[in-house]
Formats: sequence, C-alpha cells, structure tokens
Amino acid sequence: MSPSAVSATPPQAMAQGTTLIADAVAAKLSSTTAPSLAALDASKLTRTRTTTPRTVPALDDPIRNVSSFATDHMITCTWNVNSGWGVPELKPYGPFSIMPTASVLHYATECFEGLKCYRGYDGKVRLFRPDCNAKRLLMSSARIALPTFDTAEIEKLIAELVAVDAAKFLPKSDAGKFLYLRPTMIGTQAELGVQTPKEAMLFIIATYMPELSETPGGMKLLASQNDTVRAWPGGFGFAKVGANYGPSLMAQQEARRLGFNQVLWLLGDEAQVTEAGASNFFTVMRSKEGGKLQLITAPLDSKVILDGVTRRSVIQLVKERLSGKGELEPIEVVEREYTMQEIVEASEEGRLVECFACGTAFFVAPVSKIHFRGVDIDVPMAQGEVGDYTNVIKNWLVDIMYGREDHPWGVVVEEKEV
Amino acid sequence: MSPSAVSATPPQAMAQGTTLIADAVAAKLSSTTAPSLAALDASKLTRTRTTTPRTVPALDDPIRNVSSFATDHMITCTWNVNSGWGVPELKPYGPFSIMPTASVLHYATECFEGLKCYRGYDGKVRLFRPDCNAKRLLMSSARIALPTFDTAEIEKLIAELVAVDAAKFLPKSDAGKFLYLRPTMIGTQAELGVQTPKEAMLFIIATYMPELSETPGGMKLLASQNDTVRAWPGGFGFAKVGANYGPSLMAQQEARRLGFNQVLWLLGDEAQVTEAGASNFFTVMRSKEGGKLQLITAPLDSKVILDGVTRRSVIQLVKERLSGKGELEPIEVVEREYTMQEIVEASEEGRLVECFACGTAFFVAPVSKIHFRGVDIDVPMAQGEVGDYTNVIKNWLVDIMYGREDHPWGVVVEEKEV
Repeated sequence: MSPSAVSATPPQAMAQGTTLIADAVAAKLSSTTAPSLAALDASKLTRTRTTTPRTVPALDDPIRNVSSFATDHMITCTWNVNSGWGVPELKPYGPFSIMPTASVLHYATECFEGLKCYRGYDGKVRLFRPDCNAKRLLMSSARIALPTFDTAEIEKLIAELVAVDAAKFLPKSDAGKFLYLRPTMIGTQAELGVQTPKEAMLFIIATYMPELSETPGGMKLLASQNDTVRAWPGGFGFAKVGANYGPSLMAQQEARRLGFNQVLWLLGDEAQVTEAGASNFFTVMRSKEGGKLQLITAPLDSKVILDGVTRRSVIQLVKERLSGKGELEPIEVVEREYTMQEIVEASEEGRLVECFACGTAFFVAPVSKIHFRGVDIDVPMAQGEVGDYTNVIKNWLVDIMYGREDHPWGVVVEEKEV
Repeated sequence: MSPSAVSATPPQAMAQGTTLIADAVAAKLSSTTAPSLAALDASKLTRTRTTTPRTVPALDDPIRNVSSFATDHMITCTWNVNSGWGVPELKPYGPFSIMPTASVLHYATECFEGLKCYRGYDGKVRLFRPDCNAKRLLMSSARIALPTFDTAEIEKLIAELVAVDAAKFLPKSDAGKFLYLRPTMIGTQAELGVQTPKEAMLFIIATYMPELSETPGGMKLLASQNDTVRAWPGGFGFAKVGANYGPSLMAQQEARRLGFNQVLWLLGDEAQVTEAGASNFFTVMRSKEGGKLQLITAPLDSKVILDGVTRRSVIQLVKERLSGKGELEPIEVVEREYTMQEIVEASEEGRLVECFACGTAFFVAPVSKIHFRGVDIDVPMAQGEVGDYTNVIKNWLVDIMYGREDHPWGVVVEEKEV
C-alpha cells in the first residue's frame, strides 16, 4: 500500500481529495500553445460570399419566430491536435458534412455561446459584452475537452459575421430589433473511442429569434421535483455545454404540458433555488429580520449555475445604481444559496416583491407564479406586467444595447458595405 | 395561494415532490403511437449496396486498433413529429449532412448503444442479448426527449446490418473476433430553440474496435476527487446519453496523463463506488463479519449507474453457477451502495479478493490497482493477470458469445450471400 509502489504518481493536491477536473481544466487554460501549433487567428479569415443570397423575411413572417432562419453566411474554423487551428473561413451558410462516428454525435463534445447584435436607435449595430461570451466559450471548451484559443480572436470573428450580414438582415429600419449569434464548438474526430477529440470545429452562425421576454401575464414556473436535478456539485452546470440542455428537455416538456413556461430548477433536500429554464433566476424580497430590500440570486462558487452575462450585468448595474440614490428604494444584492422555503415564507408574510429570470435568449423576464410541490406562489408584479425593479433593470439594459445610453458594454461593430 | 388559482394543475404525485421527469418518461414509453404516425418498421427496409466497396484491412493493420474504420454499409431512418418514422434504408457508409442549427450539435440530444457481433468457432455470427440493447436504447431515447419505437424493429435492423456486412468484414477465418455495432439516435431539428426535437435520425454503423480487456498487468484506476462527479441522484447516469460521456473526458485525460487507465467514479462524501470509466465495476471481497465471499456492485435503484448488459449477465451467471456447486468457493452476489473505505479496509485486512470492470467495449477487465486520495490499493489477481472469479466469468461469457456453449443469450444472425 505504499504510494511509491505504482508508476503513477498523483500530485499532492490530488491526495487531499479536492481536485481532478479542476486541475486539468486550469492547466489546459493556462498552457500556452506549442510553437509548432497554429493559433486561432481572425486576421487570416478568408471570405467567400454567397452566390445564392437569401430573401430577408418580412417583419411579420412567422419564420422570424423560430430560431431556424440563418443569415447568408457563417464562419467556420477547424482544429486538430497535430497542427492546431486552421484558417477561419467566412462562407455561405449551409449544412456540415459530419461522419457517423464523429465524437459530437455520441459523446456530447460540444459547447456554445449565445449573444445578440442589436440595431440601435442611432442606426449603429452593437454587441453586448462579447468579451464575456468569448471567455465563457473558452472555459466551456476546456471543460468539455475541446480546444482552447485566444478569446480576442473569437470576438473578432463574431464581429466579422455581424459586419457582413447585419446590414441586410438587421437593416437600419429595424431599430430596436436584434439577431441572435451562436458561436459553437464541436468535437469532429471520426472515431468511436471514448476520448478527448483530436479534431474539432468552431462555427459561428446568426439567426432570427423571437422576443422571449414578453410572456403575457409573466412567466409561470414549475419547481423541479426530487427526481430531477439539472446540475450538481462536482458536475458541469456552470459550463455552457450541450450536456446541460438535452437532459432537461423532458422536464421542460412536462412543465409546458401542465401549463407552465419553464422549470425552476431546485437542488438538494433543502430545495435550493438555482436556475429557471436555461436562465438565471433572481428574487426581490424583504429580509425576515429588519425588512431590508434584497435582490437575491444563487452564487457562482458551487459551480452549479451558469455565470450568465445578463446575470453579471444585472448585479453590477443594481450595485452601481440602486444602492442609495435613485427613484426606487435602495436594494442590496445578495449572492447566496437560498431555498424555496424562504420564498414560500416571504410570500406568506408579504415580503416577496418580485422574481425574474434573465439570460440572453429570455433577456429579463418577469415571473408571476411558481408552483412548488402542491403550493402555488403568486409573485407580485407591481406594474401589472412587470415589477418595479425588473422594469428599471430591463430598461437600463435596453438603453445600453440599443445605444440610447453610451456605455462600454455596448460594442459598436463597423459594418461592411453590402 | 390556493392550488386552484392557476390554470396549470399539476398531478397529485407531483405535489408529493417525487416525480417529474420519471413521470414524463414513463408516459412517453407507455403511450402508443398515434394511428396517423408511421411506426418504425424493419420490414420496409430499402437496400442500396455500395458501388465502392472498402478493402478489408489486414489482421495486423493498425486501423483495426482504432474504432474509426466502418464496414461498407450503414442503416439510417429519419423520424419527425408529424409523420412518425420514415422508411429505414441500408446504404453505403458515409458522412451525414447536418444543419449548423441541428439540435444534436448544441443540446446533446443524442443517445446510443454499443454491442458486438461475434464470429463463432462454429463459423456462425452471433449477437449477445441484442434485446437488452434495444430496450435500453428506447429508455435512453425517451429520457433525452428523442422518439420511441418498437424495440423488436431495432433488433431486426441491427441484424440486417450484420447479415449484410459480417461475411466480408468478419469472415469465418476470423473466429474469435468481433465487430462493434453502434445504434445511435440524434436530434436533427434545425432550430436553436431549447426544446424537444421535432425531427430525429436513427443510425446503425459497424466498426472495428480493439480488444480492450487485455491491459497487461491489469487496469490501474484513479478514484475520482470531490470536484468530479460523473452522475447524481436525479440526474441521468443510468441512461446511455452523450451527456454522460463528454463531461468525463477531462478527468479521463488527466488520469491517463498520471499513468492510470481509467477513472473510478465515486459519489458523495462517503465516496460510494459507482463506475469505472464508462464500465460497471465489481468487487470480490470477504465480508467483515463471517468472512463470507461476496461479489459486490453498485445498485440500479438510485439510477446513478448504467444498467449494463454485461453487468446483468455477470450477476445472473454467478447466481446460477457459483451459488453452491462448481470448482470455486461459492460466492454471493450483493447489489448495494458501498464505499471506498470498505475496499480500503478489506485490502488492509486481507479480505480483498478481486476487482474488475465490465461493459461491452472493455468486456471483463481485471483491475490491479486503485489510487484513492493518497492511498494505493493493490488488488490481488490470483492467476497473475486475472483473478479466479474474473477469469471464470470471462470464460463463461466468451463461450456463449463465440458459440462454444449453446445459450439463449447468443443470437445467431443468418448472413446474406456477399
């Protein structure tokens, strides 16, 4: 039983029982690319324009309400373990040729980002904090055993696609509208062995997507049951990997069949509140002691929830703008584990003020109802269709996204001539 | 707060906090196909033979050691929510055309099976309990929000591919060898909304795969750390979905870098023993009280581990053949939660007899070492490269698979003339 008896010598940290994936991911993220391997380089982008341009659907065309209609172009870049990144290509949008043995089809070696480009009221097109998405894609990619890259290059490639396609598919006449952008990484190695893929592909596409934050009467959430956990400590709930989504669909479908909009994902015997659907979740309530107004959301440190860009932005704006001054009563931001029982109690004692879900797809969506294991909780919406805090937060973000407020988070993309 | 206040009325069971996905999956599995929807029907199979047949690689060709070389043909069948299953096609093996917005590339809407066809010493080709694989594929497919089907039809389609390609790629001169079969289901709907796919594809392919059970000196396992949990109660560890595999690759890679063959996946503060790599795990030890010989493995009821076909077969054979008679000392099969601490103690007290991993890919693989958080556990292998029980179990299975023993688990496939 002496540790020296094996050829394998685990590092000391491992003996403490605290690390394994975390170490490996950290090492992968901090390692520099070998000089023999090509780095991802947006400046090498080749451009092949489509010869069969698509017709822009009319504003009332229902195709705009499903996120399946893509713009004329996409950006792709392949990677392999022996040579590194290939040359990124901007080319006509179309199907991929994928071998039946490809890693992504069997082992969920896939991760993605979701962001939007916004046509501002000043005519400019903007991205919202694309650096955050690029960094999260890197973290997700390392976690799911896909390649790493310089995040600045991903930002440039995202901007390139917007620069080429926004003028046509999100024209200046569409001020206040957006396109959805989906950078994705997949493992393409054509081999069935369960292993880290030696080949991968990055692609970036742009589609229409409906405005999901406008649920009439607010969102109704069905709290998850004990048999249904979205993510767990030591798992991968914090990474934007495909493996967090497919397994949640049966619960989502069941919730919708029962008349709810999304599942409110709980964790553990204490029913900790984590996420709503594929969005972060916030609760505004008064504290039991002292009646202090608080904006509460699950913390990042247990790595169960996604580090949402909207979540992060909400927290920062509320701290900056609602901590003491302003028209609304000051509110304290609290990131901590909290439970359904706290929400039930707050509701019963009249301390529950608002709830909302937030994320890129759903933006900031007011919640009006939570069903929690036999109990219906009515969540107030002070202004009828939205609460006071949800509303002011939403408006701040809209103003930044659409250029009404000049803010460093709104990154203008210079468009190419069509 | 009255339950009648919402339009949505959750069923009574849900109010108890026990079900959500389980109910939905059960309902999906028990629902009959609407008469307007076509069922999966193997008898409709169309056949298009390849016009560019592949050369069979020599027995010493290294391509046989990676599971990337497929046979001449594959079987595919598409499904959509409005019409049901299409016509299954046997056709030349080759790449799929998949849209960049396809569900499988983003949300891991994918599941698969692994089984083998064995060229017997009597010249016949056999499947091993293909009914078990077909039933598990159905369960996995329902869990990951993909379509259901009559499992007998999947069995027939698997046999069809074997019937067409085995004679060439696994000829009678290859007695004692096998081909690996991979039935797979993927969500193909080309739409980025996070939702149950309305379109899907079943495909079945056959490849070479190396003999993985022959690790010289036995397998060395690195027990997982607290930061790394493969599956969780309320999760989906019991289903053969892609989402269980990709997230495990960083740990596997790290284990290999440190000189181990696989990760031994533990769960919880008590370090419950669950699976080894992507295989089930068995321990032979004498009980602390009474010194009774036991074959211990994690139970299925917590739904954390895969219901392995090899696992199930091992349990049944040991119960039938080692419960009292035979050359070896009788052994009791015990399916229960057990911990690393029990294995450590058994090792220290000389009660640890053998460990092995088992599954279709790794077959029955003896384990010689487990590293558990600073402690190396030497696992005995009484016969040098294998333990007594591991060896006898392996031989029973080999005899059934390769036709030395006539057994209902070995299902002969009638081959087509080439």
